[in-house]
Amino acid sequence: MASQQFEPPSGTRDFLAGDLRQRERVFAAAREVFERYGFEPLQTPAFERLETLTGKYGDEGDKLIFKILRRGEHEATGEADLALRYDLTVPLARVVAAYGSRLPTPYKRYAIGPVWRADRPGRGRFREFTQCDVDVVGSSSPLVEVEVVCAGADALDAMGVREFTVLVNSRRALTGLMQVYGVPADRAGGALITLDKLDKLAPEAVTEELVTGRGLDQGIAEELVRDITADDAVDRMRAALKDNAEGREGLAEVDRLLELAGPHVGTERIRFAPNLVRGLDYYTGAIWEVTAPGMPGSIASGGRYDHLIATLGGPDVPACGFSIGVERIIGALGASEEHRDRIDVAVTVMNEEFATEAIGFVNGLRRAGLRAEIYLGASGKLSKQLKWAADRGARFAVLQGAKEHADGEVTVRDMETGEQERVSVTDLFTHLADRRSM
Amino acid sequence: MASQQFEPPSGTRDFLAGDLRQRERVFAAAREVFERYGFEPLQTPAFERLETLTGKYGDEGDKLIFKILRRGEHEATGEADLALRYDLTVPLARVVAAYGSRLPTPYKRYAIGPVWRADRPGRGRFREFTQCDVDVVGSSSPLVEVEVVCAGADALDAMGVREFTVLVNSRRALTGLMQVYGVPADRAGGALITLDKLDKLAPEAVTEELVTGRGLDQGIAEELVRDITADDAVDRMRAALKDNAEGREGLAEVDRLLELAGPHVGTERIRFAPNLVRGLDYYTGAIWEVTAPGMPGSIASGGRYDHLIATLGGPDVPACGFSIGVERIIGALGASEEHRDRIDVAVTVMNEEFATEAIGFVNGLRRAGLRAEIYLGASGKLSKQLKWAADRGARFAVLQGAKEHADGEVTVRDMETGEQERVSVTDLFTHLADRRSM
Repeated sequence: MASQQFEPPSGTRDFLAGDLRQRERVFAAAREVFERYGFEPLQTPAFERLETLTGKYGDEGDKLIFKILRRGEHEATGEADLALRYDLTVPLARVVAAYGSRLPTPYKRYAIGPVWRADRPGRGRFREFTQCDVDVVGSSSPLVEVEVVCAGADALDAMGVREFTVLVNSRRALTGLMQVYGVPADRAGGALITLDKLDKLAPEAVTEELVTGRGLDQGIAEELVRDITADDAVDRMRAALKDNAEGREGLAEVDRLLELAGPHVGTERIRFAPNLVRGLDYYTGAIWEVTAPGMPGSIASGGRYDHLIATLGGPDVPACGFSIGVERIIGALGASEEHRDRIDVAVTVMNEEFATEAIGFVNGLRRAGLRAEIYLGASGKLSKQLKWAADRGARFAVLQGAKEHADGEVTVRDMETGEQERVSVTDLFTHLADRRSM
Repeated sequence: MASQQFEPPSGTRDFLAGDLRQRERVFAAAREVFERYGFEPLQTPAFERLETLTGKYGDEGDKLIFKILRRGEHEATGEADLALRYDLTVPLARVVAAYGSRLPTPYKRYAIGPVWRADRPGRGRFREFTQCDVDVVGSSSPLVEVEVVCAGADALDAMGVREFTVLVNSRRALTGLMQVYGVPADRAGGALITLDKLDKLAPEAVTEELVTGRGLDQGIAEELVRDITADDAVDRMRAALKDNAEGREGLAEVDRLLELAGPHVGTERIRFAPNLVRGLDYYTGAIWEVTAPGMPGSIASGGRYDHLIATLGGPDVPACGFSIGVERIIGALGASEEHRDRIDVAVTVMNEEFATEAIGFVNGLRRAGLRAEIYLGASGKLSKQLKWAADRGARFAVLQGAKEHADGEVTVRDMETGEQERVSVTDLFTHLADRRSM
């Protein structure tokens, strides 16, 4: 295809009106919820200094950073000094470090914006995609988790995701579990990363990786996987952690979150999930993930990450956040209903002499709050202009020929029924504003 | 200052809540106008293929393009393959080429989004800034200019720029003028670029540049500058172009635009300006620029550019557009009034036992459409929690101690007057929703 040169770069998308409007509706729904919760918006630049980003996402992540070449005389060095942001969390850490006490305490912020990753593009995987994050920085209160989970659940609801389940666990409960099952402390982190694969791999494969990859005893690995995937895993975990201090505190975190957020989220939509691990090792307390029928994987996730901001270059402040997979949700919501924009009124121009009047009509209609367009094509034929009005999805067309003009009137055509009526020019705006709202 | 490493990269900005909201209000005002005119939004990726951008902005422009290093094994080459978009017009040309007949005819699109230029940052000059463009692609109708000028003027109005003047001229009138004054055709383009400096340089300096830089005869240059800057320049230009075909057509373009757009824009806000040149040589018909008292330079500009889309790699289709300098306008509108977000209700947590109730209050208030927050700090002291409520700009605070709890009531405190009243828990949401709207 010769037009390939006109496609957007690999992994990026052009959003024409229909898709863009659907995206905006989803983002606006989330924004409206976050605002009601008292979260503040934050917008940071598309790029950061390269050193702000490197080393923050692991070796694999570093390779996916889009780097920007130095400019002017330095361009020839082939070196980069800036890079497109990879997520919204590192910029948050930088802002917390930069603005400190000028931010409210705690700082409740939301951010909805594009990030860039040089991933191999694929089905539902893009190099430019939008993230949607809410975070609370600077408070250790257990109410923070409740706020964040309730806000995220409300946002999902508002976006149109009606059925979903919030699966809750605690990093501390998992740490306790490792202790109880006799996993050495230095292997616990790796073991948890492997256990996180239970939603993708068969239990046997996970067991094997725990033994060969993570150095666990065969017996311990088998018991751990069996208990954590059992139908009564919740009971087994509670029993196992009964005498473990760290584990008990973790379970208390989970129970408090279920108790306090449950009434708002809906007790049937939130539950303890002992096999939820979340591989990311920066979580320090409660963790959660949201699944929804018909949407593969998780559509949102989050947790408490009390030292991450410091690791990312900010101050050592407690924090907790929720990230909603808006691209996945938009993809699952399906194509937008209105593929083409509809307008209220199409004003035809049957006679160049009456262009002044036609412009007066269309601008008057706009002033009256209607979405109106004037014919900008080259044809003087009524049939062509009515076809244009139909293509634009106009509800009404306004026509003025020599006869109407002489009478100070226009013809208003109902584009659905084809019915036409004469209306006085002075009544046109209120007439159509009234009819539109019928 | 040690915190410099936490500043955003040179020439970019972090937008915290207050500034971001002001920007969003300005953008939303423009969007609302464009939608009423039937313009459709378009959003293209932040970056384009490097070859899509290079050679489109002249040598100076090319140097200001932010280039993105190739990735993976190619990174070491120091070569770039992508680049951040430099404006919104080249992406439009690419989209017109890519989507062709799948776009409406004519394609009326608006775009509001960031662009990036590696300019030396300075007062009001940024490396990441937002552009706001409306364009009509695919129609030669003179009504297009009227649409675009009316939409732009309405958008300025809606953004809060009440006083402004639209200065109109025509590239064809200027071409005719060059012919009438005996400027050789091959020097006319350069001469116009120099004449464009009349708003910045003294007439003598412009005359000299016309002679030494553009090769015009001294006499011709003097006469041209004198006539074009005279108080009666309009009359002189009309007289000069009386017998020049190209010039007459140009004047007709200007007159038609003034006649048709004048009644809507306001005849006192739009006028013929013979000394308006606009150095960009891609304009082919009417051109305009908007000035406003108290705002330096122009705050918006545009015109017809019938072959630019082809030059930029798209098909050869007529086009006309208007670009509004939103950054300049936002800068001139001054600081936002509300520096910190205000909330409607602050819910205190005086007793950890009653956290469930407090969460019920705050979430119920949000459901009732109020902006409400719950105290997330560590203090159990009423005075500290009320200070927090005041800092958040809350209109009301909700308190529940043991006594209120026992009675199934809460205390509602008016944060302005300090007045307190007891309200039944069941009435709380409607009570506060009613009081807020008072």
